[in-house]
Amino acid sequence: MSVLVVGSIAIDTVKTPVEEHSDLLGGSASYAALGASFFSPVRLVGIVGNDFPESEFQFWESRKIDSKGVQRANGKTFRWSGEYSWDLNTRETRSIALNVFEDFKPALPESYRETDFVLLANIAPSLQAHVLDQMARPRFVVADTMDLWIETARPDLDALLRRVNLLILNDSEAREITKQTSLIKAGRSIRKMGPDYVAIKKGEHGALLFGEDNQFFSCGAYPLEDIHDPTGAGDTFAGGMAGYLAGTVKKVHFNDLRRAMIYGSVLASFCVEAFSLERLRALSMEEIAKRYETFKLMSQFEVPL
Amino acid sequence: MSVLVVGSIAIDTVKTPVEEHSDLLGGSASYAALGASFFSPVRLVGIVGNDFPESEFQFWESRKIDSKGVQRANGKTFRWSGEYSWDLNTRETRSIALNVFEDFKPALPESYRETDFVLLANIAPSLQAHVLDQMARPRFVVADTMDLWIETARPDLDALLRRVNLLILNDSEAREITKQTSLIKAGRSIRKMGPDYVAIKKGEHGALLFGEDNQFFSCGAYPLEDIHDPTGAGDTFAGGMAGYLAGTVKKVHFNDLRRAMIYGSVLASFCVEAFSLERLRALSMEEIAKRYETFKLMSQFEVPL
Repeated sequence: MSVLVVGSIAIDTVKTPVEEHSDLLGGSASYAALGASFFSPVRLVGIVGNDFPESEFQFWESRKIDSKGVQRANGKTFRWSGEYSWDLNTRETRSIALNVFEDFKPALPESYRETDFVLLANIAPSLQAHVLDQMARPRFVVADTMDLWIETARPDLDALLRRVNLLILNDSEAREITKQTSLIKAGRSIRKMGPDYVAIKKGEHGALLFGEDNQFFSCGAYPLEDIHDPTGAGDTFAGGMAGYLAGTVKKVHFNDLRRAMIYGSVLASFCVEAFSLERLRALSMEEIAKRYETFKLMSQFEVPL
Repeated sequence: MSVLVVGSIAIDTVKTPVEEHSDLLGGSASYAALGASFFSPVRLVGIVGNDFPESEFQFWESRKIDSKGVQRANGKTFRWSGEYSWDLNTRETRSIALNVFEDFKPALPESYRETDFVLLANIAPSLQAHVLDQMARPRFVVADTMDLWIETARPDLDALLRRVNLLILNDSEAREITKQTSLIKAGRSIRKMGPDYVAIKKGEHGALLFGEDNQFFSCGAYPLEDIHDPTGAGDTFAGGMAGYLAGTVKKVHFNDLRRAMIYGSVLASFCVEAFSLERLRALSMEEIAKRYETFKLMSQFEVPL
């Protein structure tokens, strides 16, 4: 089954303590769509300017990422520039130019409206809601968000949460939205705001998943020694989760989400091995399967190994 | 099989943001010995003053904790007082009075010398080494350490590491001792300093285990909503690991250490539910088994659940 992915498409400049690269493809939808595409066909919604490389449309086509929903507007593509701290754990935005993204109003092609699985990658919650408004009854809605929307668009976000099946956010955002120190309390509280399931990303510490009746799943992060560029890891994680569900599952249960979270973690672990989407572009299903096996090995303590 | 446990025995005053209690039993050996005693007989080595409650000796006896190796000295028992930050993640020592601990020289009773499993709970590495010096060939040596010794007794610690099979330390200590940001790099580097295995405790994020040939195990923390007193959690974790190994395993393999780490995590999760040793004193094997099952459920994603 297909998954509809909406979010930002950007051209990034990224500086880490060791390297700086500019004019990289970025944006939440770019990462999420490519992540999802390993498991299911993707219907992409976004906006680009006339400086956007035509080659990317060809790449999407080669990956069964339908770009009918990507608007081409007069002007420049959204640009973001960020710099990471010495340990790559925090980053600062150096500049943002919304450009064509400023007036973005996602408009779904007719053929997208009946998509069963939706990933609302990180953009303003009002835009995420606007996408849902145009859809027939989607079966499963995944949404990602960020601190900016918790701080500046809380009523929109609260309204959105009541329409979401799985919310994905990181640990500091989970603490911020609930004012809870304990991530366990935070995860359980967020469920009461609307989502059936909550996934909390913890970077090098892995991720947590919360469901009804205190259902709980905890997974570690893949043991990477070197991280080159953390940009897009969270979007790729969300894309991997949503893509796996759309491609594999008819009716989503907690146990499906466990595996989806592992696939999201696998994809995110590849994402950070290179700048931009470079590692994901070169990634094979065999490599994904191998890393999935490593997740099994590193988390089992009972089953004969 | 028995496990020999050496470390500090203290009387603590502990302040959290919500409560303060004084004259609590504490010290690394007290927590570690009680943790280990759920799985194997314990031979305890330490020192107490004449203010130390006689009832504790009776409690130890009831738990098959042999206290022949606990010296009774003239003077006061070691006293520690600490205060936790609002989120219980950091603490400050308010006062320390070494008292009888100042001249502590662990002396092993003859009957202790042939013990196969040893847990060198957190004390100065020179004292830990002094215990090993008095032993016949122990089969498996577990050592815990802390930032203080990394900063003030590095040569002693380095010498000790070459005599240790499993080193247990927390994430910030692992980073400090290796000067590596990545915990994966840190865990692997510490193995090169001597220990066959390295366990890195990450508090609410669980723990990591490193072995030869890049063997790796990652476990989450038990999903606790409320922590009352984190004191002794690390010592209890170490005690649980060492006790499980001594009580269950003949020759230690990586897969045994996986399960040992889960039992250590289970015991630590109980430890923090109350001040001092109170929760552990009331703990049953049934409760341990139940929480062990929860660890299985919360980490599985492949096996039918």
